[in-house]
Amino acid sequence: MTDTTTLNNTLNIPTIDLPRVVIIGGGFAGLKMARLINSDEIQTVLLDENNHHTFQPLMYQVATAGLEPDSIAYPLRKTLKTKKRTHIRMTKVTNIDFVKNMVHTTIGEIRYDYLVIATGAKTNYFGNKNVEKHAMPMKSLTESLDLRSLILQNFEKALTQSNEEEKDSFMNFMIVGGGPTGVELAGAFAELKKHVLPKDYPDLDIRRMQIHLIEASPKVLSAMSDKSSNHALEYLRKTGVNVWTDTLVKDYDGNTVTTSKEVFQSKTLIWAAGVTGNIPNGIRPEHLENNRIIVDEYCRVKGLENVYAIGDVALMKTKESPRGLPMLGSVAQQQGQYLAHSIKEQLKEKTVKKFKYTDKGTMATVGRNLAVVDIGKIHFGGWFAWLTWLLVHLMLLVDFRSRLVVFVNWIWSYINFDRGTRLIVRKFSKKPDKSVSQKEELVA
Amino acid sequence: MTDTTTLNNTLNIPTIDLPRVVIIGGGFAGLKMARLINSDEIQTVLLDENNHHTFQPLMYQVATAGLEPDSIAYPLRKTLKTKKRTHIRMTKVTNIDFVKNMVHTTIGEIRYDYLVIATGAKTNYFGNKNVEKHAMPMKSLTESLDLRSLILQNFEKALTQSNEEEKDSFMNFMIVGGGPTGVELAGAFAELKKHVLPKDYPDLDIRRMQIHLIEASPKVLSAMSDKSSNHALEYLRKTGVNVWTDTLVKDYDGNTVTTSKEVFQSKTLIWAAGVTGNIPNGIRPEHLENNRIIVDEYCRVKGLENVYAIGDVALMKTKESPRGLPMLGSVAQQQGQYLAHSIKEQLKEKTVKKFKYTDKGTMATVGRNLAVVDIGKIHFGGWFAWLTWLLVHLMLLVDFRSRLVVFVNWIWSYINFDRGTRLIVRKFSKKPDKSVSQKEELVA
Repeated sequence: MTDTTTLNNTLNIPTIDLPRVVIIGGGFAGLKMARLINSDEIQTVLLDENNHHTFQPLMYQVATAGLEPDSIAYPLRKTLKTKKRTHIRMTKVTNIDFVKNMVHTTIGEIRYDYLVIATGAKTNYFGNKNVEKHAMPMKSLTESLDLRSLILQNFEKALTQSNEEEKDSFMNFMIVGGGPTGVELAGAFAELKKHVLPKDYPDLDIRRMQIHLIEASPKVLSAMSDKSSNHALEYLRKTGVNVWTDTLVKDYDGNTVTTSKEVFQSKTLIWAAGVTGNIPNGIRPEHLENNRIIVDEYCRVKGLENVYAIGDVALMKTKESPRGLPMLGSVAQQQGQYLAHSIKEQLKEKTVKKFKYTDKGTMATVGRNLAVVDIGKIHFGGWFAWLTWLLVHLMLLVDFRSRLVVFVNWIWSYINFDRGTRLIVRKFSKKPDKSVSQKEELVA
Repeated sequence: MTDTTTLNNTLNIPTIDLPRVVIIGGGFAGLKMARLINSDEIQTVLLDENNHHTFQPLMYQVATAGLEPDSIAYPLRKTLKTKKRTHIRMTKVTNIDFVKNMVHTTIGEIRYDYLVIATGAKTNYFGNKNVEKHAMPMKSLTESLDLRSLILQNFEKALTQSNEEEKDSFMNFMIVGGGPTGVELAGAFAELKKHVLPKDYPDLDIRRMQIHLIEASPKVLSAMSDKSSNHALEYLRKTGVNVWTDTLVKDYDGNTVTTSKEVFQSKTLIWAAGVTGNIPNGIRPEHLENNRIIVDEYCRVKGLENVYAIGDVALMKTKESPRGLPMLGSVAQQQGQYLAHSIKEQLKEKTVKKFKYTDKGTMATVGRNLAVVDIGKIHFGGWFAWLTWLLVHLMLLVDFRSRLVVFVNWIWSYINFDRGTRLIVRKFSKKPDKSVSQKEELVA
C-alpha cells in the first residue's frame, strides 16, 4: 500500500482516494464500529492511548486477584488485522479543529472526512478534590492492578502493625457507589475475606476485616428492577458486606472517611460512585450537557455535519429515554454497529434510519451462586442468574483464548475456593496525579 | 497461636520454644527449603521483597508477550499455607548482624538461631555504567513487563518515524549474552518477527527488523555440550538471528551500541550477559569470592557456625566442580532440599552428610520444534528435544492451575502462530535507577 501512495502527515497514514473516518477511542463503541466498517470503501484511522481494548465489566476481577489483564484486554491490532484499510495509532488526542476537519495528537495531526468521538467515560469525583487525591479509581487496567497491589500490601502492613486501630484501618475497605461495579467489587471482597485471606494470613484475625459499601441513593443497583435491587441487597448482607444506603461521602484524607452518617477509619477508599464524559479538547460548551456530548438520533454531534459521538461520551435523548440512553456497554456496541452501517449508507446517498436501542437486559453478580438478572419484565436471582451471568460474560469476551483462560480460572476458583493471581508485581506507592493533570490539560 | 505467645519484635513473629530458622529469599532455593522444613520442630521465617516466587526460566516468555505474570509467578503465602509455624514477611533486608544473630529489615528486626541466605543473583554489568544505565535487564517480573512494553512501544514509534535510520533503530534488537536466556529470547524475537508482527503492523516493513545476539565467548550455550551448542547456533541462524560470537559490548548510550567488532544503531539493548551474587549488607569481604558467598559442602558460610547460603548466591566448590557449582535452578532446589533435611538432622544431633549435586541435565529452546537437550552424555536436538523442553517446563511449574493456563497459551500459540498477550498495560518511559541505588546502598 505504501508503495502506491504518498504520506502526507506525521502519523504516516497513506493518502488514498477514499473517504477517511477517524475514530477516537477503541472501547466498546469505537472497536465495534472499526470491526464492522467496510474497509473496501472507507479508510479508517483508530486512535487510542492504549494498544488494547479493555473489557471493563470484568475489571473488578483483575483488581481482586481473580483474573490477569490479558484475560480481559485485547490487542487492537490483533482484532483489526483483517481490515486492510484500517490504521491504528497509539496516541493521545490533544485537540480537534472542527473548522479545518483536523485531529491533533501528540505524534502529529490528521485530516478527517468523518470524525467519530468514542472517548468513553472517566471517573467522576463530583468536584471533591480530597477524594480525587486519595481515593482509588478503577477505570483502567493500570488502576485495577494498582488497586490489587494496594489491597495485598495493606494486608502485609496490617500483619506488622502493633497499633490495633492502625491494623483495623488497613483491613477496612470502603467502596463508594452501589452500581454494578461497586456491588460486584464488594462481593469479590467478601469472597476474599471468607475463603482466601484466612489461609494466606493465619497470623491475622481476618474476622476484623470490614467491607463497607456506601451508596448515596436509597438502594443499590438503582438502574435495575426493585426486585433485583432488593435481592442484591440481601445477597450483599448475607456475604457480610455492610451496606450504607442514603449515605454521602463528604471527605477523605487517606485515613478518615467522613460520610453524612458515620466516620470510618480506612486506608482504602475505592471510588466507583460515578463516571463523566471523557471530553476531548476542542469540544465547545454548547455541545455538552452534563459533561456528555449531545447527539441527535443519528449519533451526530449537534451543529456539526460530519462529526459523531457514540458510547458513554454521547448523550442521546430518545422518546423512551428522555434523559438520555444509559452509559452501558450494550448501548455503545449498538451505536458502533449502527454508525458503521449508517456511514456506508450515507456514502451510497441512501436515506439513513435513526438509531434504535434494543435493551438486552442488565445483570450483576454478588458472588458464588448469587446474581441478579433483569431481562425486560423478567427478573430472577440466585444460582440460575449467576450461571446466566457467567455464560453471558464468557461469551462476550473477544476471543476463544481469553474465554478458555477465564473459564479455567473461574472453574479453579469455584472448586478450590481460591484465587490464582494474588501477585504484587509492581508495588503501589502513591496514586499518580494523572486524572488531575488530565483535567488541567482540558482547562488549559 | 498468637493467643498463647507474646510478640517480641516489630515483625510480629510469635516467640515460641522452638529453634527459629530465618530464610532470606523465596527463589528456587529458599522456597524449596521452606516447603520441606519440618514445621512441627522448627519455626520458619521467610523474608522476601516480593509476595511471590518467580519461575525464572520462563520469564523471557513474559517479556515477549507469550505468557502473563501469573503463569510463572506463585504467591508465597499460598505455597506455604499448610506450614503452621512458617511466617512470611514481605520486606527488604537492610543488614545482618552475625554477632547478635539479628537480621535487620525495613519493617523491624528479628533474631535467628539459624540463618539461610538465599538471595539469589542479580544482573551483572561488569562495571560498565553506561550499559547499566541504558540497557534493559530481565531478572524480575517487573523488568520483564517493562521490556515487553518497550518492545511493543518501539514498533508503535517505528510506525510514525519518517527518518528511515531512526525507524530501523527502533526495529533493531540487540541481545547480549549467549546463555540460555539470551538464546531463548532471541528465538522468541524471531518468532514474533516471522508470525506475529507482520500481521500487527501491515504499514511497517517487518523484514527490516533485525535481531542480533552478541556473545563474548566463541560459542553460544557454552555450558552445554559442543553438539548442543552447534545445534543451537544452527537453529538461531535458521530462524534469522544474527549471531555474533567472540564479540564484546564496549559501550551503549541508548542509541549506539559499540562492540569489539561493529557499531550498531539500536533503541533496545537487552542485557543477559551475566549475573552476580545478590549480597546482603553485613557480609564481609572474606566471605566472598567472585561476589558469591563461599560455603563448605554443608552449605555453611565459611567461619560462621549457624549461617548458611544456598542457591545462586552461594559458591560451593566440589571435587567435580572445583570452580564452584553452576548457578542453576536445579542446584538451588537441591541445596534447599538438602538444608531442610540437614537442619532437622542437626537438631536430632545426628551426623550430617555433605551435599551432593545430581546433574539432571540442561536444555534450551530456540523456537517452534527447535531445542537442545543434554542429559549426562546424551545430547539431542530438534522436535523431540523441543517436546522434552515443553513437558519438563510444564511439570516444573508449581501448581495445576499455572500448568493448565500455560498449556492453553502454548497450544494456542502453536496452532495459531500467535501470541496472546501483547498488551502495553503500563507504558515504559524510562529505566528506573533501581540497580544503581541498590549498589549504592551496598557500598554505603
